[in-house]
Amino acid sequence: MIKVGIVGGTGYTGVELLRLLAQHPQVEVAAITSRSEAGLAVDELYPNLRGHYPGLAFTAPDAELLGRCDAVFFATPHGVAHALAGDLLERGTRVIDLSADFRLEDAEEWAQWYGQPHGAPALLEEAVYGLPEVNREAIRKARLIAVPGCYPTAVQLGLLPLLESGLIDIEHVIADCKSGVTGAGRGAKVGSLLAEASESMKAYGASGHRHLPEIRQGLGRAAKKPVGLTFVPHLTPMIRGIHATLFGRLTQEPGDLQALFEDRFKDEPAVDVMPAGSHPETRSVKGSDICRLAVHRPGGGDTVVVLSVIDNLVKGASGQAIQNLNLMFGFDEMAGLNAPALMP
Amino acid sequence: MIKVGIVGGTGYTGVELLRLLAQHPQVEVAAITSRSEAGLAVDELYPNLRGHYPGLAFTAPDAELLGRCDAVFFATPHGVAHALAGDLLERGTRVIDLSADFRLEDAEEWAQWYGQPHGAPALLEEAVYGLPEVNREAIRKARLIAVPGCYPTAVQLGLLPLLESGLIDIEHVIADCKSGVTGAGRGAKVGSLLAEASESMKAYGASGHRHLPEIRQGLGRAAKKPVGLTFVPHLTPMIRGIHATLFGRLTQEPGDLQALFEDRFKDEPAVDVMPAGSHPETRSVKGSDICRLAVHRPGGGDTVVVLSVIDNLVKGASGQAIQNLNLMFGFDEMAGLNAPALMP
Amino acid sequence: MIKVGIVGGTGYTGVELLRLLAQHPQVEVAAITSRSEAGLAVDELYPNLRGHYPGLAFTAPDAELLGRCDAVFFATPHGVAHALAGDLLERGTRVIDLSADFRLEDAEEWAQWYGQPHGAPALLEEAVYGLPEVNREAIRKARLIAVPGCYPTAVQLGLLPLLESGLIDIEHVIADCKSGVTGAGRGAKVGSLLAEASESMKAYGASGHRHLPEIRQGLGRAAKKPVGLTFVPHLTPMIRGIHATLFGRLTQEPGDLQALFEDRFKDEPAVDVMPAGSHPETRSVKGSDICRLAVHRPGGGDTVVVLSVIDNLVKGASGQAIQNLNLMFGFDEMAGLNAPALMP
Amino acid sequence: MIKVGIVGGTGYTGVELLRLLAQHPQVEVAAITSRSEAGLAVDELYPNLRGHYPGLAFTAPDAELLGRCDAVFFATPHGVAHALAGDLLERGTRVIDLSADFRLEDAEEWAQWYGQPHGAPALLEEAVYGLPEVNREAIRKARLIAVPGCYPTAVQLGLLPLLESGLIDIEHVIADCKSGVTGAGRGAKVGSLLAEASESMKAYGASGHRHLPEIRQGLGRAAKKPVGLTFVPHLTPMIRGIHATLFGRLTQEPGDLQALFEDRFKDEPAVDVMPAGSHPETRSVKGSDICRLAVHRPGGGDTVVVLSVIDNLVKGASGQAIQNLNLMFGFDEMAGLNAPALMP
Repeated sequence: MIKVGIVGGTGYTGVELLRLLAQHPQVEVAAITSRSEAGLAVDELYPNLRGHYPGLAFTAPDAELLGRCDAVFFATPHGVAHALAGDLLERGTRVIDLSADFRLEDAEEWAQWYGQPHGAPALLEEAVYGLPEVNREAIRKARLIAVPGCYPTAVQLGLLPLLESGLIDIEHVIADCKSGVTGAGRGAKVGSLLAEASESMKAYGASGHRHLPEIRQGLGRAAKKPVGLTFVPHLTPMIRGIHATLFGRLTQEPGDLQALFEDRFKDEPAVDVMPAGSHPETRSVKGSDICRLAVHRPGGGDTVVVLSVIDNLVKGASGQAIQNLNLMFGFDEMAGLNAPALMP
Repeated sequence: MIKVGIVGGTGYTGVELLRLLAQHPQVEVAAITSRSEAGLAVDELYPNLRGHYPGLAFTAPDAELLGRCDAVFFATPHGVAHALAGDLLERGTRVIDLSADFRLEDAEEWAQWYGQPHGAPALLEEAVYGLPEVNREAIRKARLIAVPGCYPTAVQLGLLPLLESGLIDIEHVIADCKSGVTGAGRGAKVGSLLAEASESMKAYGASGHRHLPEIRQGLGRAAKKPVGLTFVPHLTPMIRGIHATLFGRLTQEPGDLQALFEDRFKDEPAVDVMPAGSHPETRSVKGSDICRLAVHRPGGGDTVVVLSVIDNLVKGASGQAIQNLNLMFGFDEMAGLNAPALMP
Repeated sequence: MIKVGIVGGTGYTGVELLRLLAQHPQVEVAAITSRSEAGLAVDELYPNLRGHYPGLAFTAPDAELLGRCDAVFFATPHGVAHALAGDLLERGTRVIDLSADFRLEDAEEWAQWYGQPHGAPALLEEAVYGLPEVNREAIRKARLIAVPGCYPTAVQLGLLPLLESGLIDIEHVIADCKSGVTGAGRGAKVGSLLAEASESMKAYGASGHRHLPEIRQGLGRAAKKPVGLTFVPHLTPMIRGIHATLFGRLTQEPGDLQALFEDRFKDEPAVDVMPAGSHPETRSVKGSDICRLAVHRPGGGDTVVVLSVIDNLVKGASGQAIQNLNLMFGFDEMAGLNAPALMP
Repeated sequence: MIKVGIVGGTGYTGVELLRLLAQHPQVEVAAITSRSEAGLAVDELYPNLRGHYPGLAFTAPDAELLGRCDAVFFATPHGVAHALAGDLLERGTRVIDLSADFRLEDAEEWAQWYGQPHGAPALLEEAVYGLPEVNREAIRKARLIAVPGCYPTAVQLGLLPLLESGLIDIEHVIADCKSGVTGAGRGAKVGSLLAEASESMKAYGASGHRHLPEIRQGLGRAAKKPVGLTFVPHLTPMIRGIHATLFGRLTQEPGDLQALFEDRFKDEPAVDVMPAGSHPETRSVKGSDICRLAVHRPGGGDTVVVLSVIDNLVKGASGQAIQNLNLMFGFDEMAGLNAPALMP
């Protein structure tokens, strides 16, 4: 049994960590912090947790307290982990950061997209990008994990086999992504109101979104050279889920694409390549840590289409964070993550 | 480890049994039947189950096969359990019927509401109404369980304390109930299409609904005399959830209503009386076997209002069925039912 | 052609006025004010209006400008009309207030529910409660209209025939009401986010809601004595619509209830009594100024159930406001309000 | 005042014709047919129409009756207009077909995609493809109109400026389209149930959809040579709306793309090019005949992204059909189509 802490527990990734960890046989949540809600019992904010965390209340962030944990999750806006991670690492506490703070290896690029200097460039070298399907061994040994973003997870998993095998034109990759509204967080914004976002569909950030450099970096690592990516995210009237529709142009006869995908992920516990001809639905992963994929080649032409679905709060955030934790502490990789998706 | 079978597994209560039983440590699903889908793997119909039931496929109903199970769930339209339950009981298999077949103790009344003669009146006497909060001891010893309907569960749990204590006018009880569309089942009906049922709200069955006699019977048992009930169900644009708003007129000073409710349910693992002043949300029980209750006395007047929420597919059907199974086989009552609700 | 102004045009009732008035043959919108959005073109905030109001932009509130209008709508939070209405009336401009400022005849009661002193008690006597089905003649001559609230409109229209005819026990009337989220306005509140309010149902204000005194006042006028009302509003996962389910206990044989309702509303252009046995859907009035009603007497017992649906933004606010305007200026009562509801 | 008939009036495009025509000053609906619902009043099926079409009921199809109309709309499954259009044209009645029967100029290709021989090849030559933005003059003189499909409308309008100007690589055009569920019609299919389609997102027909040849044909006409198109439609949890996200690769410096789009559509009453940087929402056209467009060039690279939104039932079907009618009879092109979209 290890002790974990959660910094910034009032947002959606925070409560999702609590929901999932309630089923984890080897983890105890010892501390959860929130500046704004200090003193409030977690189940007053999230009644679904009533009975699961008796006595657990939000506290003000406290390095002492967090430093007594074996690992600490950051479910915070960017910048917070920059400020606190170094101190925790020195205390021997491992850090799993769900924010964007350590996702980009280039501090300059980070500063450009986030409009402020990088707050902990010295830690960048040891930070491990927590995508188990790519970095499993490094994760096992890591002290500091940058959990991938939701869009980056769905897009990378869908494109890895094509990029690693060099089958597509890497200068013109297209990712058309659709996300549920929890992707925008729990902040009270007019555009996220049910009255505004329901019964509607819209693109956003078509000329540039903060997940773009992270995706490009990941795709570039897989392709071993820079990848030209057009990424258009859309807001979709649902609570959870990301559907990434990925388009690549084949530069050679690809052979059996279905087999390529099945081989690439055959030992991956969190990736499910569906049968040929499938169209995965986001609801098939609602509440679960699975990414389901399908690959199509319409009309046998030179365009390959990959469909990739995840739950943005699970495989796209808190579930993947726990997968990382499990690897770091030698637990079963899917411990606490085995429940089937909620369907219907 | 016991073996269970599911008859009629293609509907929503069937797949919900599979979803929940996947997490049950002491139960193996040995057979699942469906006349229409025989031969199909369960995870082809329900991709959320991929990886959870390797090799499990629907088969045609087969008494031999089902008779080798320790218990069989019926997740079928009415009439089916009438035809098969007797044979299974003779083979020593316990029967947990999620349909309406054994809910009414009076075969005549059943025939009236369902428009056909009761198919197994001889079994009525031994059938136990599977509401653990009322019949726990009888359930432990039962061979044949009638799992309560979804509306009846939400309404009875909300009214039990008031009726058992004789505080309200039993001739004029009102239950205004709102249900998600899974309550109408997986049948393809125009009225259940997203295009018809979304962005709208409507009552139905205002002059009489099949759950009415079941609720009246249950309330009458609690009050120990006939109860006059007006029951108006509504179709609500959500997938899961029932919200019952219950109105009773006090016939005497009730004392501390909050304490009355807390006392009545203090040892109940599946009922959560929320703090005074609460308004439970259906999402706080989404996917979970919990019924959350709140009691109000607006303006200190003579009307008491109870708010009662359940997930119609869990506490209102498959979860409660498993709660019954657990009691019948001496397992922890909430085995397989411990995951927090999915929120947001 | 008359000129109208709108104060507080950025909220949902403001944009709804613009949507409806775009189709009104005798009205020109000459001014629209908003402190926060002054300078912004209306169609930048509401792109559905592109092409309909070329050149119209929000301006800071300006009594001079508004005073040049024939009528001014207040689509503001409470308190604003208190401050500005008197001045406009003196300038000869008629005032149609969609807020709660002039709905209660008793300034004390208003102060109690709104937590501040009434800001214009001297105007209360001349304010006319703008429910055309009750006050048509007074509205025609009025200078100052208090447009009824959304819940009050749905509840009063459903209960008028029963109260006016003295058929029900007026001490125990129950209104169980379900509203779409636009009822909560365009303010950015966490509880109104799609991620929070979708796929869920909850009651709120069970122990007291600001619409309660307004409803009680209206019902009391109809019954000619005080009415005891239990009012429980619910938040429903849809954008628009109110479904009021109303329960009354008959104190005598009521005769033909269907005929009673049809007679009461036979000349009302905005009320539609549906055929006996109907269950009106809120979507059947989406975007329209119609209130649809159905009356049931379940099991022929002593409880009467009325189902009443409106679009909270139209008959519950902006449409009704225009109905008042039409009456005040001698236009056809339904001018600008004739389009069928949007269904599906 | 002209008389029109509607064949197949019970589906969503049928009721949408009725909703829109109720506001048309120069059109009377003289007949509406439905084999399955003959005898039923239209407002029994669609209560939103109560009061708008007193006395109008569905009748069995009857060439005599329809032949007395000036124009007849077919809102039918494919094949029906094949069988009836010729006879009507001979009687001097103009035909506006909302089905796919006359959309493809090549009868062979039609037969291939629809799995049955083309039923009226002799009429193909005179059929005019009813996209006013391309064929306005031909439409004015036409006797037989093939109203474009919903996806084809959204995709063609978004790509016309790029194809007509020869700016993009026409061998690799991508259309990622998202549709509300009314696109699947009013048929009762399990996949269209709220319980299945809500809170989820999925692609379908990734390897081939019936709208593909129609879109290719239209794009090819604009480009004046064959266009290689990858078209992936998605089912989105909303009632109405199509969002097409279109990707083209620039083959030359394009100059001012915003100006290109504005110029192309400056005189088009049903197309709205939004300001540079915009992201149109489908709700901004809900219930309206407008197509809103925005053009982006992310990062100034060689990929151009066009965002195109329509209401699939209006500009994507019934509204566009009426636009055609207006042109054919010399009415204002937008008569009956002027109401702003319903937002929120």
